[in-house]
Amino acid sequence: MSLLTVGTLAFDSIQTPFGKRERVLGGSCTYVSYAASYFTDEIKLVSIVGGDFPSDEMENLRRLGVDLEGLEIKQNGKTFFWEGRYHQNMISRDTLVTDLNVLDDFNPVLPESFKKASFVMLGNLTPSLQEQVLDQLDNPEVFIALDTMNFWMDMAMDKLLEVIRRVDVLVINDEEARQLSGEFALSKAALKILNMGPKYLVIKKGEHGSLLFYNEKIFFAPGLPLSEVVDPTGAGDTFAGGFMGYLSKTGDTGFENMKRAIIYGSAMASFCVEEFSLDGIKNLSKDEIENRVRNFSELVDFSL
Amino acid sequence: MSLLTVGTLAFDSIQTPFGKRERVLGGSCTYVSYAASYFTDEIKLVSIVGGDFPSDEMENLRRLGVDLEGLEIKQNGKTFFWEGRYHQNMISRDTLVTDLNVLDDFNPVLPESFKKASFVMLGNLTPSLQEQVLDQLDNPEVFIALDTMNFWMDMAMDKLLEVIRRVDVLVINDEEARQLSGEFALSKAALKILNMGPKYLVIKKGEHGSLLFYNEKIFFAPGLPLSEVVDPTGAGDTFAGGFMGYLSKTGDTGFENMKRAIIYGSAMASFCVEEFSLDGIKNLSKDEIENRVRNFSELVDFSL
Repeated sequence: MSLLTVGTLAFDSIQTPFGKRERVLGGSCTYVSYAASYFTDEIKLVSIVGGDFPSDEMENLRRLGVDLEGLEIKQNGKTFFWEGRYHQNMISRDTLVTDLNVLDDFNPVLPESFKKASFVMLGNLTPSLQEQVLDQLDNPEVFIALDTMNFWMDMAMDKLLEVIRRVDVLVINDEEARQLSGEFALSKAALKILNMGPKYLVIKKGEHGSLLFYNEKIFFAPGLPLSEVVDPTGAGDTFAGGFMGYLSKTGDTGFENMKRAIIYGSAMASFCVEEFSLDGIKNLSKDEIENRVRNFSELVDFSL
Repeated sequence: MSLLTVGTLAFDSIQTPFGKRERVLGGSCTYVSYAASYFTDEIKLVSIVGGDFPSDEMENLRRLGVDLEGLEIKQNGKTFFWEGRYHQNMISRDTLVTDLNVLDDFNPVLPESFKKASFVMLGNLTPSLQEQVLDQLDNPEVFIALDTMNFWMDMAMDKLLEVIRRVDVLVINDEEARQLSGEFALSKAALKILNMGPKYLVIKKGEHGSLLFYNEKIFFAPGLPLSEVVDPTGAGDTFAGGFMGYLSKTGDTGFENMKRAIIYGSAMASFCVEEFSLDGIKNLSKDEIENRVRNFSELVDFSL
């Protein structure tokens, strides 16, 4: 089933304790597409780039099965640019530069054939833009995942709550869940957030794994203890891409399959952080992915 | 099989965002004994208290099956006292008062009948005292678990390493594992620490659960998302008590049973933090414990 990804294509300059990379490919749509491409070749992308965006990177996306009809190219504009430096703990980071460039004019318009998408990954954008995308969707059975960040909770909480009310699964991290709910304990935070509308809530906890909340049920997906985290950039979007890609492939949004989707998302994210930029999730084999997923399964395997 | 617990009996004054308690019962031996008592009634305790330690608390311990022959009572001394205040996150805390009192003269001497213990939980003490206990043990099959803290890594690393070399399982938290190994990634830290001697390493990550390392194998025990953490004091010792109690009951220190022991330890710790002091782990029923253990099992249950 088709997966619509709406968000950013970007250039990132990244410094971590393991090295630096200048103007490498980044952006939520990019990570989502690369991760999801292992599960589906029906990916539809809505984003915006400048005239500086390399045509061979567009060709690479097309080769993955990504439909770029919804990609706006502003020839006289520049692509969104982000520069950041990670601290030793690989969790906190300083943003050094954020050049919105063409993203400032982003006006997501869905091509006709995109409106019937079965699955939608709505990347972190202003809640108004997210709402604009929701308004264009035309499939009563659509399953929508939403990403957001603390910034929008500070700046546009009312609009954000309107958007959250309309989605099926909210995918945020623990600090965001705490801010959104005003609750410190994640189980309490989850109850409040599920009351805001979404059927599912995924709380990402970085190296500690993630939690899936559904009614009164909780699933704890472990974090794989990696020997080397080289670059955490894009891990969250890669998780989302693997998660939504797996759902698109299977077409099953029940709780049991949702758990599997989270494990696949976690596996893809674990590949992502092992190398800079998208290098960790390019050219994976089916076997590598299946083996990694089995590692997650063995990690928590015990019998009473 | 018998479990020897060596460490502290104490009075704690505790402030958390949920309230405060003055001079309540605390200490590593206390938490270990209460938690382990659900699994074995062959508990032997070695510690020291002052004349101010209530005889009815000693009677309570005896009723749990704790042999107090190794408890030194210094009639003209005062029992170890600790006062602390937890921050909102319930992880970091300020120590307000540490009165070692009689602990300053602690000279752990094992009664003859204690030396053949099958399982030993060596609580956080100076490495020299821990070594003194090890030197008195007289059971070639003994299985020894060790707790320690950053402070001893700063103050007595050489002696600590000698002690670590002689134990079967080291039970520490993530920050301690990082300091002990000089490695940030826990999987790398674990490899280094296992090379220091212990067969097993348990790394506790608080609300995020814990990791068990054994050769190249890793087991991830989840943290139960609790709706209310009232007082984290003693959670680590309660974990250790449940863990070692379960091992004493089953007598099996293979990897598969070690996983179960960690789940039982985690379950006991989850009860501990729900109330102040020892209140959460007093008067539990077998059913409550088994149900809680099943919660852990369901939390990570998925099929590929």
